[in-house]
Amino acid sequence: MSSIIKSVKTEYYQIPLAEVLSDAKHGDHTHFELVVCKISCHDGTEGVGYTYTGGTGGRAIYSLVEDELKPFLLGKDASRISQLWEGMIYKLHYVGRGGLLSFAISAIDIALWDIKCKQLDQPLWKVAGGMNDRTRCYAGGIDLNFSQEKLLNNIQGYLDRGFKGVKIKVGKADYREDVQRVAAVRELIGDDIIFMVDANYSLTVETAIRFAKAIEQYDIKWFEEPTIPDDYQGYARIAQSTSIPLAMGENLHTVYEFNYAIQQAKLGFLQPDASNIGGITGWMKVAELAYANNLPICTHGMHELHVSLMSSQPHAGYMEVHSFPIEQYITQPFVVDENGLAVAPNVAGTGVEFDPSLVGQYLIKQS
Amino acid sequence: MSSIIKSVKTEYYQIPLAEVLSDAKHGDHTHFELVVCKISCHDGTEGVGYTYTGGTGGRAIYSLVEDELKPFLLGKDASRISQLWEGMIYKLHYVGRGGLLSFAISAIDIALWDIKCKQLDQPLWKVAGGMNDRTRCYAGGIDLNFSQEKLLNNIQGYLDRGFKGVKIKVGKADYREDVQRVAAVRELIGDDIIFMVDANYSLTVETAIRFAKAIEQYDIKWFEEPTIPDDYQGYARIAQSTSIPLAMGENLHTVYEFNYAIQQAKLGFLQPDASNIGGITGWMKVAELAYANNLPICTHGMHELHVSLMSSQPHAGYMEVHSFPIEQYITQPFVVDENGLAVAPNVAGTGVEFDPSLVGQYLIKQS
Repeated sequence: MSSIIKSVKTEYYQIPLAEVLSDAKHGDHTHFELVVCKISCHDGTEGVGYTYTGGTGGRAIYSLVEDELKPFLLGKDASRISQLWEGMIYKLHYVGRGGLLSFAISAIDIALWDIKCKQLDQPLWKVAGGMNDRTRCYAGGIDLNFSQEKLLNNIQGYLDRGFKGVKIKVGKADYREDVQRVAAVRELIGDDIIFMVDANYSLTVETAIRFAKAIEQYDIKWFEEPTIPDDYQGYARIAQSTSIPLAMGENLHTVYEFNYAIQQAKLGFLQPDASNIGGITGWMKVAELAYANNLPICTHGMHELHVSLMSSQPHAGYMEVHSFPIEQYITQPFVVDENGLAVAPNVAGTGVEFDPSLVGQYLIKQS
Repeated sequence: MSSIIKSVKTEYYQIPLAEVLSDAKHGDHTHFELVVCKISCHDGTEGVGYTYTGGTGGRAIYSLVEDELKPFLLGKDASRISQLWEGMIYKLHYVGRGGLLSFAISAIDIALWDIKCKQLDQPLWKVAGGMNDRTRCYAGGIDLNFSQEKLLNNIQGYLDRGFKGVKIKVGKADYREDVQRVAAVRELIGDDIIFMVDANYSLTVETAIRFAKAIEQYDIKWFEEPTIPDDYQGYARIAQSTSIPLAMGENLHTVYEFNYAIQQAKLGFLQPDASNIGGITGWMKVAELAYANNLPICTHGMHELHVSLMSSQPHAGYMEVHSFPIEQYITQPFVVDENGLAVAPNVAGTGVEFDPSLVGQYLIKQS
């Protein structure tokens, strides 16, 4: 009875970004939201989970955790993760099936895995599989509003920090400007750095095809979210017209959506985000789908957590080091080694604990 | 400038049901939630919109309307519904793509249509198309926990009220009990009453096929949600194995999900719910998809509003008169005529205004 849930505490933060970051479809980001969930068991074990947004919806996630899921969780056995995960999905199914509910379940599920790891006294990278303790990664810029000069300075900064891969935003009003920016970045980084582009689903299928053809010469690792994530068959039409593999995942919030995307969208890389696919449980389900379909598994956002999941998997692709610097607010340092590999924290648990002296000033409300 | 939005007020209610109502997957319903959105324009026009849930998630919807969408709407032109609808979907896309966000947008969109109708001084059934002023309907029971005797008494009550169609819940632990209940209901209602069954996505594909074959002899109009709404190909396997048409829609929250369901699930009837498909704008998009695919358009829930939408359409199927009696809390009576047709209110607007003397006691919070 040691892992019976005694308390669930929820915290909601708005954390400002150092500068305004823009992409083609979400517009300007001035801050990100963080919803943290702390679950305590009767044996004293505490698990920390969390999710984040680009600036909107966090208070609704807080409500889902605090008003709906907390009453469901209290008194239940934290070690029965699958039972709790299915229970949360079906208790709120009528307002769920992905969407915002997946964010709330993610925060809780990550806390449950943190408890599991702590009870095993093992780090997440082992508990989730243990293939490796580090993983390939790239720096993902949110830089569509940067001038070309600032864009290149920013990319140089990534190289100076030891990254072996970079990604830029595309989706300018005239796609030929994107082509120029891609050409300039490839010239700067040389031939050996991995290079991706991300349109944040802003393009028509027709423009995406034109753009992809125009940048094939620059050795692009993947073309992320060319058009709306709902249009799997549109993705397939783009994929069939270019040699650049397509990637998506940050906007797919159920394992079923990933299943359709795999079957129909002809993707080259899958990018589930444990903060919005139902936590580690959801991310692992997608990782297994990827494995069975011979596709590399990648990620979006929350690299301080994903580093452990990616390291654990045999078919890991490239982990995004996202421009929302959540890792600056936690106790464990985020490490990229001399080979440009991100190193999983070697402590019991997920390795993500928030430092009150760093996040405290951004707390909006808590239970 | 007359229709510039001046204020948005939000109300959250928990309304108890007269008795506990159960289905196979959501379990017991003790109350339903109502989130009402009142939009006022500078010219004095006020529109009322709303959404509802089966008991959970309403406070998160309230947060989405109050914290996220209200700031977006203030000062905008209420008559540009398409612009506002797209704006709401993409402003919150990262936490959206259906799910809970669709409920919040629905409440606002319905208020915008109410304003549009009032400014035209026309009833919704005309503004939405004007095909007819009344529509076929059926009484939808949430009766899985009723004994067979109580089930039959309840069905007799529907017949006494003049309904020409009835639907019961199925999904008992042993499907053969469901078969017995179906047989008993058909015996009670005779050959001329339309009869549907609804499993609330509780069955495996295999059991759904067995059950469908066993009840074909009872002239079943449709088999609703036999298995999880995500499994379009599973629906197709069921549809191909029985002569009973399949129906779904209450759990599809984007027009894209309906598009996939139409293409892949081999449905006979579509059941969008304007309270969770993005309001009247979303419902109309699905109605046009249904028309182009030669499928009857139907509904789930909120019959006091859907009566106007269904009446307006040339390809209307059968409107559900749902067991959540929202119509008891509004000023306009809900009328079923002597032929069992539901009659659209003939007043300017949607015809749905809540009566404070009836709902006021259930108000939990408001802005």
